[in-house]
Amino acid sequence: MDELDELHPLFVGAYAENAQILEEMIVEFLRDHLYWRRNFHPEDVPPIPTSAQYREDYVAFIGALKREMFRLSADLKRSVPFFSPRYVGHMASDLLLPGVIAKVITTLYNPNNVSEEASPATLEKELEVGMQLARMVGYPCDTDAEPCAWGHLTSGGTVANYEGLRNISALKFYPLALSEAVRVTRALHERIAAPTHRDDANETAWLEDATAWQLANLSIDQVVSLRREVLSVARQVLSADAFEGFCDKIEGERLEALGMVDFFGLYPELQGASVLVPGTAHYSWEKSLKILGWGKRNLITVRTDAHMRMDIAHLQEILEQHLKEERPVLAIIGVLGTTEFGTVDPLGDLLDTRDAFRARGLEAAVHIDAAWGGYLATMFRRPDGGVYPREVLRKQFHYFPSQTVYDAFTAIGRSDSITIDPHKLGYIPYAAGAYVARNRGMIDFIAQRAAYVFDVATEREGATAQDVQQKLKHLGQFILEGSKPGSSVAAAYVTHRVIPLDGEGFGKILRHTVRCCEYFFDALEEWREKVSPYVTVTTPIPPDSNLICLAINPVGNTSLAAMNRFGRQLFSHLNVDASKPIQQRDFIASYTSLLHGALDATRGEEILGELGVSPTTFVPSAEVDAGEHGVLDDHIFILRHTLMNPWLMAEEDGANYIDRYLDTLEALITASLSPDGR
Amino acid sequence: MDELDELHPLFVGAYAENAQILEEMIVEFLRDHLYWRRNFHPEDVPPIPTSAQYREDYVAFIGALKREMFRLSADLKRSVPFFSPRYVGHMASDLLLPGVIAKVITTLYNPNNVSEEASPATLEKELEVGMQLARMVGYPCDTDAEPCAWGHLTSGGTVANYEGLRNISALKFYPLALSEAVRVTRALHERIAAPTHRDDANETAWLEDATAWQLANLSIDQVVSLRREVLSVARQVLSADAFEGFCDKIEGERLEALGMVDFFGLYPELQGASVLVPGTAHYSWEKSLKILGWGKRNLITVRTDAHMRMDIAHLQEILEQHLKEERPVLAIIGVLGTTEFGTVDPLGDLLDTRDAFRARGLEAAVHIDAAWGGYLATMFRRPDGGVYPREVLRKQFHYFPSQTVYDAFTAIGRSDSITIDPHKLGYIPYAAGAYVARNRGMIDFIAQRAAYVFDVATEREGATAQDVQQKLKHLGQFILEGSKPGSSVAAAYVTHRVIPLDGEGFGKILRHTVRCCEYFFDALEEWREKVSPYVTVTTPIPPDSNLICLAINPVGNTSLAAMNRFGRQLFSHLNVDASKPIQQRDFIASYTSLLHGALDATRGEEILGELGVSPTTFVPSAEVDAGEHGVLDDHIFILRHTLMNPWLMAEEDGANYIDRYLDTLEALITASLSPDGR
Repeated sequence: MDELDELHPLFVGAYAENAQILEEMIVEFLRDHLYWRRNFHPEDVPPIPTSAQYREDYVAFIGALKREMFRLSADLKRSVPFFSPRYVGHMASDLLLPGVIAKVITTLYNPNNVSEEASPATLEKELEVGMQLARMVGYPCDTDAEPCAWGHLTSGGTVANYEGLRNISALKFYPLALSEAVRVTRALHERIAAPTHRDDANETAWLEDATAWQLANLSIDQVVSLRREVLSVARQVLSADAFEGFCDKIEGERLEALGMVDFFGLYPELQGASVLVPGTAHYSWEKSLKILGWGKRNLITVRTDAHMRMDIAHLQEILEQHLKEERPVLAIIGVLGTTEFGTVDPLGDLLDTRDAFRARGLEAAVHIDAAWGGYLATMFRRPDGGVYPREVLRKQFHYFPSQTVYDAFTAIGRSDSITIDPHKLGYIPYAAGAYVARNRGMIDFIAQRAAYVFDVATEREGATAQDVQQKLKHLGQFILEGSKPGSSVAAAYVTHRVIPLDGEGFGKILRHTVRCCEYFFDALEEWREKVSPYVTVTTPIPPDSNLICLAINPVGNTSLAAMNRFGRQLFSHLNVDASKPIQQRDFIASYTSLLHGALDATRGEEILGELGVSPTTFVPSAEVDAGEHGVLDDHIFILRHTLMNPWLMAEEDGANYIDRYLDTLEALITASLSPDGR
Repeated sequence: MDELDELHPLFVGAYAENAQILEEMIVEFLRDHLYWRRNFHPEDVPPIPTSAQYREDYVAFIGALKREMFRLSADLKRSVPFFSPRYVGHMASDLLLPGVIAKVITTLYNPNNVSEEASPATLEKELEVGMQLARMVGYPCDTDAEPCAWGHLTSGGTVANYEGLRNISALKFYPLALSEAVRVTRALHERIAAPTHRDDANETAWLEDATAWQLANLSIDQVVSLRREVLSVARQVLSADAFEGFCDKIEGERLEALGMVDFFGLYPELQGASVLVPGTAHYSWEKSLKILGWGKRNLITVRTDAHMRMDIAHLQEILEQHLKEERPVLAIIGVLGTTEFGTVDPLGDLLDTRDAFRARGLEAAVHIDAAWGGYLATMFRRPDGGVYPREVLRKQFHYFPSQTVYDAFTAIGRSDSITIDPHKLGYIPYAAGAYVARNRGMIDFIAQRAAYVFDVATEREGATAQDVQQKLKHLGQFILEGSKPGSSVAAAYVTHRVIPLDGEGFGKILRHTVRCCEYFFDALEEWREKVSPYVTVTTPIPPDSNLICLAINPVGNTSLAAMNRFGRQLFSHLNVDASKPIQQRDFIASYTSLLHGALDATRGEEILGELGVSPTTFVPSAEVDAGEHGVLDDHIFILRHTLMNPWLMAEEDGANYIDRYLDTLEALITASLSPDGR
């Protein structure tokens, strides 16, 4: 069977080919919902009398509603045609049938996954979606063993990123509070020991003898065990009242209770914990540090290499410096599929580096931002849970996966937590992000009890799978959000059930997207020749997955600013213009920029060299030279193409949509540059 | 026309009486969407061949999908029957037709309101929804004047609350950074003046002469003007490069850049800014302070009075103390409709207090948490934008609105920002919260540029309505979330269009809910007599709107713990039990607790006195006495009823659902307490 064939029944379709199935199922289950309403207490008289529909006010309201729906429907026709293979812009595409149907139907029941009391059917599904995603990325999933993963949906990747940092911080600084509480609780002094070095787990030291630096450099697994161990001893040693007091003391000494200023006032040597991100990190990371109180200054940018991947040597340098200065690292963020370029940080090396520094007493939690690339892990995952050897995968592609990319995907399971967006490569409707963590033990550190909940005792104990499952039924206590839609959960759940998160399920969709990218990349060779009388074309960032960017410079031009103006003029024919009908566009792309400050200098020169642009026109700030005839610029404008639409390879007269896109681009270029063009 | 009649065409219906209309419209606009797909480039050959549906793999997939949808639909039958008037538990109910239809249809187009580029049709609607809500609560809405409101949807009230604090903090501490940047920019020294006292706006003082305390006590309006004024002078005085440098310097000195520890290291006298909340505040406030880095310790609880409203005298005391110690107040949170009791803080007095302290140099921003009560403002709002006099409203109810409640609703416009949940009293599907602020000028303080955006210059200027509108098209840069569903926006927008946010639109729904509550309250008088041989019943918190709570004590019992056990046993017949069919329940209620620490001591004694419970059994901690026969307890268990369902007053044999609920409760009580009962 052709690889495109496999996708036919999965999506709504660019031509809404599966319209009938979609409508049939929505109508069937819509009715099923509506008639369900009559089965709660069938004996009740319907509150709306059958005669109501003939009343004037009733007719007037329905008329007004219909009129307003006509207006909405008309206005929605201005929407971006994400469904079309002519859309190669941002990270949105056609929708999977199961996701749309489940989302729509569940919306009618309107479950609220803040707590099982408001979502008896969908809360357990949310925890299951968390486990599905955990399995996909290789986190431990045996609920009877330790550690075991957990996860849940968020409104999007941004909130999942906040949550990643929030949770890491909650655990990182807990041992300091614990130590202080033990110190002031005499009865506990001689009973409690704690490992302070991961590499020497049997060495124990009295908690109180550990330095602040040591206490702030325990791994998440260690902190989880430490808490359990200490609480268990405390419960034996202390009276019930004293135990409560001890627990209150711990809580009162935590970063979350004291606030940053007072907490780090107690531990000035730990001030300014850093978050390390590659230069390609999404802007939500800077936002995170601002919002969470750490401050942008503590966001340390790790250089990226020529492939727009994190430069591990620079990461090591930075960590070395931190270790030397005993400056804590809150987290290292690895990006699995950058928003701008789809590139993949070398997570294997990153995690090896983490391990190496861990052995030397510097602990840095690793959170993976896989908002974009998370689902790509399905290509690597065998249905039995194992991982395909690289050789097996290599046969399915021309280039993919490079060793670095392969190592990255197979290393995720060693990270601490991850952000994944089902509303991106999971092809389900907004809003559906996800946060998944490797060790569910962390939920005991982040609980926020509602004031009126009274079962304090049970909150403070219990570590069995049963307990965790029970606690998570009050999901709102453990996450950043409160009320949350069960409909998004149902969309992800049903989708993952019928299209499993492995090489034989989602893998087939995502393999196709990577092949589209390889096709695009290969097609460029010939195309570059075709347009060479007019422009020089490069792919400044070699694609790691399914995003490809083009830099285009008119032949003979040596000014970066002029090249950028040319690129922007091209893009003005490929953009979304809310004021005009979408039909005016043959294709829709997106753009991004390589900023002077963010780009490796040598690589910048290389890219401009290939384009024939003078590197001296690439400057840190272009303000002075701005304007129609300026030659200097502070960024390299590039066209950006997200190749996630399932129908890109559909052919007509022997040409698929990638061919046709390149034809369109060529026509725009020649029209613009031919002597008779403008 | 009967008031219930007016609601007939608005909702789906407890018996899905409006099923046909719902189905018709969904099918019509679903098809409209699907056929729209064929109009982008009609000439394109459909990628899915017409023969695909006959292929084995295709049939197998659709079969699997259908099977999974059967399972989902079956499982959703365990959902909570929010639609039914037999549901008087949490804050969820039947859904408005316009909201459901618009939500479902817009989901198909899948707009992403992070930016207009991904939501040409729904982004402007989101800004309009913000203005609709702003008008509803009385914020200034003339886009050509200053200040003018702005607002947007969030995933829920919790995120809107975070955003409230984040934005207030961004403005409160900005003048310190500005002052520092002016100080080090010599050319600006003698050119820039700033008002430091609200009550004497004409007095200007050199920014650099102002104390940190003064700079941190400017109102939001003042900070917005101050920034504009200084930037405008700076642009005249400084070269383009120097201006950029000046702007960078400001940014670098801000709290968001330095982080809390370093920023307050520079201004130790400002450490520990407080957030003042009533004891009834939602648990998301404590979560906010933990997450944003302020720390739970800086959450100062203002006592509540016997009505479970903020005690303004105590608020004044706290502010007095802060002023005396020159300890900054980040914000005062007023609650408009508490989650537990539906009570309304005296916002009129609260804002008068704010004004009084402002005049004395202590500025406290006021954020209103109206996640629950926001839409109740429609009852007060005339269609022409004015406010109904209290006498007019009083005629529509038995008790509502009390002077305090009236003053609270008419005072909202003087607050700085507000949280409102359309997915609560807006009766639209999850997830739809909202954040609205009085002065849109604040968006210039919270922008987070994406790294690849290059139009820095335009970012740093501009204050016209046009500019603001233009900037907000990149909505994701100004809010906490990133990707966000346009479908929620459409649901709110269409709903507000057909049911305007005033007394003649939404007001009629919400008047009905308040009347239901008054009916319940009045009915208790007789019912209390009926059940008096068995139990003593009180309403420990006089209802402010549409929530009512009951405390029930068996006659003769004097132990609080026993009363609570009895209450919990009653509730075990009124709860949602995910493991059992919903049909086992005649009614579904909820519960809450009055905690020893959170309840005014005198009021606690009063409540227990009315119930015949010995006040000595109400203790700070009940741990020691816990168990089946304990007499002490640390909370008063009460049944909680949210009366938002539109069909509560529907009658059958002369009894409406409130009558029938009380009958059910009576039967449970007598069954439990009659000699032959158990």
